[in-house]
Amino acid sequence: MSGSTFGKLFKVTTFGESHGEAMGVVIDGMPSNLEFELSKLQAQLDKRRPGRLKESTSRVELDEALVLSGIFENKTLGTPICVIVKNNNQRSQDYEVLKTKARPGHADQTTIDKYGIRDYRGGGRASGRETVSRVIAGYFASLIMPAVTTTGIITQVGPHLTGSKYTSDSKLSLGDKSLDDKISTYLLDLKSIGESCGGEIKVKVSGVPKGLGDPCFDKLKATLSHGLMSIGSCMGVSFGYGDGFKSALGSEISKERCVFGGIEGGISNGEDIYLSLIFKAPSTVGDNAKEGRHDPCILPRVVPVIESMIKIVLADHYLINKALFIK
Amino acid sequence: MSGSTFGKLFKVTTFGESHGEAMGVVIDGMPSNLEFELSKLQAQLDKRRPGRLKESTSRVELDEALVLSGIFENKTLGTPICVIVKNNNQRSQDYEVLKTKARPGHADQTTIDKYGIRDYRGGGRASGRETVSRVIAGYFASLIMPAVTTTGIITQVGPHLTGSKYTSDSKLSLGDKSLDDKISTYLLDLKSIGESCGGEIKVKVSGVPKGLGDPCFDKLKATLSHGLMSIGSCMGVSFGYGDGFKSALGSEISKERCVFGGIEGGISNGEDIYLSLIFKAPSTVGDNAKEGRHDPCILPRVVPVIESMIKIVLADHYLINKALFIK
Amino acid sequence: MSGSTFGKLFKVTTFGESHGEAMGVVIDGMPSNLEFELSKLQAQLDKRRPGRLKESTSRVELDEALVLSGIFENKTLGTPICVIVKNNNQRSQDYEVLKTKARPGHADQTTIDKYGIRDYRGGGRASGRETVSRVIAGYFASLIMPAVTTTGIITQVGPHLTGSKYTSDSKLSLGDKSLDDKISTYLLDLKSIGESCGGEIKVKVSGVPKGLGDPCFDKLKATLSHGLMSIGSCMGVSFGYGDGFKSALGSEISKERCVFGGIEGGISNGEDIYLSLIFKAPSTVGDNAKEGRHDPCILPRVVPVIESMIKIVLADHYLINKALFIK
Amino acid sequence: MSGSTFGKLFKVTTFGESHGEAMGVVIDGMPSNLEFELSKLQAQLDKRRPGRLKESTSRVELDEALVLSGIFENKTLGTPICVIVKNNNQRSQDYEVLKTKARPGHADQTTIDKYGIRDYRGGGRASGRETVSRVIAGYFASLIMPAVTTTGIITQVGPHLTGSKYTSDSKLSLGDKSLDDKISTYLLDLKSIGESCGGEIKVKVSGVPKGLGDPCFDKLKATLSHGLMSIGSCMGVSFGYGDGFKSALGSEISKERCVFGGIEGGISNGEDIYLSLIFKAPSTVGDNAKEGRHDPCILPRVVPVIESMIKIVLADHYLINKALFIK
Repeated sequence: MSGSTFGKLFKVTTFGESHGEAMGVVIDGMPSNLEFELSKLQAQLDKRRPGRLKESTSRVELDEALVLSGIFENKTLGTPICVIVKNNNQRSQDYEVLKTKARPGHADQTTIDKYGIRDYRGGGRASGRETVSRVIAGYFASLIMPAVTTTGIITQVGPHLTGSKYTSDSKLSLGDKSLDDKISTYLLDLKSIGESCGGEIKVKVSGVPKGLGDPCFDKLKATLSHGLMSIGSCMGVSFGYGDGFKSALGSEISKERCVFGGIEGGISNGEDIYLSLIFKAPSTVGDNAKEGRHDPCILPRVVPVIESMIKIVLADHYLINKALFIK
Repeated sequence: MSGSTFGKLFKVTTFGESHGEAMGVVIDGMPSNLEFELSKLQAQLDKRRPGRLKESTSRVELDEALVLSGIFENKTLGTPICVIVKNNNQRSQDYEVLKTKARPGHADQTTIDKYGIRDYRGGGRASGRETVSRVIAGYFASLIMPAVTTTGIITQVGPHLTGSKYTSDSKLSLGDKSLDDKISTYLLDLKSIGESCGGEIKVKVSGVPKGLGDPCFDKLKATLSHGLMSIGSCMGVSFGYGDGFKSALGSEISKERCVFGGIEGGISNGEDIYLSLIFKAPSTVGDNAKEGRHDPCILPRVVPVIESMIKIVLADHYLINKALFIK
Repeated sequence: MSGSTFGKLFKVTTFGESHGEAMGVVIDGMPSNLEFELSKLQAQLDKRRPGRLKESTSRVELDEALVLSGIFENKTLGTPICVIVKNNNQRSQDYEVLKTKARPGHADQTTIDKYGIRDYRGGGRASGRETVSRVIAGYFASLIMPAVTTTGIITQVGPHLTGSKYTSDSKLSLGDKSLDDKISTYLLDLKSIGESCGGEIKVKVSGVPKGLGDPCFDKLKATLSHGLMSIGSCMGVSFGYGDGFKSALGSEISKERCVFGGIEGGISNGEDIYLSLIFKAPSTVGDNAKEGRHDPCILPRVVPVIESMIKIVLADHYLINKALFIK
Repeated sequence: MSGSTFGKLFKVTTFGESHGEAMGVVIDGMPSNLEFELSKLQAQLDKRRPGRLKESTSRVELDEALVLSGIFENKTLGTPICVIVKNNNQRSQDYEVLKTKARPGHADQTTIDKYGIRDYRGGGRASGRETVSRVIAGYFASLIMPAVTTTGIITQVGPHLTGSKYTSDSKLSLGDKSLDDKISTYLLDLKSIGESCGGEIKVKVSGVPKGLGDPCFDKLKATLSHGLMSIGSCMGVSFGYGDGFKSALGSEISKERCVFGGIEGGISNGEDIYLSLIFKAPSTVGDNAKEGRHDPCILPRVVPVIESMIKIVLADHYLINKALFIK
């Protein structure tokens, strides 16, 4: 209830501070008898692992998944899944300076104001490291809806437009893989001067069955927005035509259903869902950032987190729909 | 659970189809002993009432609030509040044609796909009429947090930029009241040719105490997005610098906390919250729209709905915080 | 969240004070396309209606169900059901004396202590009248699980054992219909002297499919207990052998599964469920009670409430199971 | 949602199968800045630890608490608490026979029926071992309400009445410590012949503030019943006079508020709460039981579990009340 649980039937609770013992997730509401493969879960974790990309933070974490419950002989038992990942590379001493300093755009000051206490060794719960738990949950969500595919691409990195092709062949998840080298150089340059940048990510979601979402508060666009906007640094979300809707007339958008981004009246219509996300630059800049354990741009590492979050939202709707409406 | 409930402690459940007997709301989680004034509730309802603006739908509803429970001698009892509003002007015959026709961008087809049944007399649950219940709930939310003020302004109507001053003196809620006549003419023209348009609304929220929101799934920006994106036709939401974050560098945005829109690390920092919403044009165009019971542009009527939804979200966070963290 | 909602998927929210405008219920989570018959709903309400039995309170209420939402052409829409029942016979003046007097065993004093305000005209939310909303919800639950039958019988009335046959032919719902006259006389005598009594109700539930309930907090016996113990004056609940379990040895009870009351490990095993409930005497005695608008014994009127509550609990488990585990 | 979460604000989620990697609990909704002492948590765990009493199972577990999150410098952070306890003494080979055999009164058959899969090495989620997680949560609940004390006593062991004094000086938690030796002998005898027995536990809860509980579904007696009846082998619960209510007349029980067990109208009245629980004999009897890793009577070990569960329920109500009603 202090907001570390998401979902109603596929109920995901994450726990762990960035510099505590471990990060982890409990899923209460996992259907039974689905096949679990540790290597596939690990592959998902590896996609967001710090240290994988040289353009990213130099914090190294192995992020090895340790299953504590809910799996037996490689099948889900229908009981709560608990998977943890240990925090190995904590280097708390790096953060001693943060004991008294509140970084703008971080949760430092707001955490003190709200809780009266803060694990000053790092971002605590507000750290991007929390998203490792979401990637784990996303893997389990994908067992429920194996036909759903998500393709997240980076379409803008700071001032650079980086292509809009839904592809998975770019090393940096750009929408145009031919720009990988250029953007890599740009990010390394930012890193070297202690600067950072934001950007835009677009996602195409395919294989969503008709009928997900509810016509009132839990419109699919609303719960997806909840999930996605709960990712740190995500500052905006839009669906279908996005910004284009502001000036478009009714006659222009009423011809095809796809302009609504695969959702009509809050309910999926079976077509691909398109959405777009705005990310701000990491707030840590200057000397702190130069020391290296910060991302000059979190977008490449955030793509698998976004994809996981979308799958979590869809799995929850799918189960609710299975209970109430799908024949 | 089929998504007509919002909130965890300030729990708002809405009910009613646009052409059924009544619209209504139950609030379970209303604190006791707060002063209730029917005239003030009615004043809120009047702001979104169809028929108030000539630029809007010609459906006329009195939308008179009828309190069924939770109030005694003009005070809240702490028991569930139920308030209903009758549907008087249903004119179901207007909609007979819709029995077999699914309008793009509406919930018509998706409702049939999901539920196997539809109240074809109108939008049913997906109708904008459902928002009357949210305005009622917003009034009760404002009793919990009387210091919060919300100022929603329309900054774009179709192709027209309409000012960005946070003011409440424009008849049409524009950001520049001197444009009222011009935009009024534009909307009446659209109405006469059966055309419609979208636009942009920006909101400034003042008086929010520090400490609302949680660092994980229920970041304040996430729950606000959930609530706002659950309003029909709302296609995008962003906070603070919004689109500007895509290209801004870290050094540019890390100087002032206000650029983050009053929220840092998912938690309110006590400064004003700024957010921006994208709305699509109503999907009903052509001959159907000319007959008159449709809005050429829902923005003027949606402003009080947005303000109510924001208050609902804040009241829920406020109560959770009161339980767990505020001294 | 102030506890007027029950259920996770079949979400029942009741509202209304005994002397307010109306009692009512909203069900969010009603499956669509189920056949609704107003006369059958009304028949359920009639079973618990005050004034039906001369042995009961002389408050007369018609308790006519008024459907506000969720039904169209006699089918459920899948949208929230709202049904209300007006409070006609309020006679608030009867209760003027209660303005300053707190009755032991009632919520009078605790309500003041908790809320700082009380609708002194009657029991408010704590009134037995609230259960009219549960009977409505029970009707809708029965649409989801038409095969479930509940047979509640009164096995003790004050000092009198009243039979233990699961039958529905006793006018007073006794376990032995031949005792109807004797118990009727006993109750009228109690009424005439301003006295009251408690008793015991046993219930047999048939037609429950295997697999309802969860192995941890939501064991079927636990959620049934929650629902049943939330009925005013219910002071105890037990399953299967009940009291007999205290002294029975393991070898005695391990031969047959039925001794566990149709539930093993918290999950229904497909056999009949047996449970037993303890009820206290109404606390209003003496001159107040003689004036007549009080029940000398609530058991006959509470039987349909118990049956409804059981169906509500089962429907919720059934839907959850349908989402997660039933093939 | 598959029922491993309890509470609305003090949200306790347990996980772990008896023969999996670990048992554990996540608490989302722990207030911040409360003092944590590992030794005190460990002391609670030691009370229910298998192997502590020779009259109990011979399974030996150290049950050492390992804190994964939510604590920093011995204070609660306000973030989710996760504590786990490893399963060391699994001896799965003991259970190989259970692969194909379903024990009556256990969840063996119902688990297969519901989930289509079972961790046949033991009771899985339905094992009494799950309650280790509840004892951990109970410790944290006690930090929220340090003034609450619970005294659970065993008042009946099979055929033997064992005293009714609320005392904590009996080694076996009997209501009369002078019977410790006699009951110890009785239990060892049962163990030696592979027999088991049930009994009764009574609890006195002191220090509960006024105002906890809600007048409708979440009456304090209802949520306590939910929590307590979710403990394996608990087959009945009653409050105050318990069974005595069946025959007592209204005039007899209306003199003193204490007969209602500290709860009136579903809300605590500030007096001590009294409740009584029926427990069935463990279902494992005969040769299986003789081999020794089973309790002939779970009552001595279940007392700390009951006390923990009561504290969990109270803490949740306390926080809700703090949000909504306590000044």
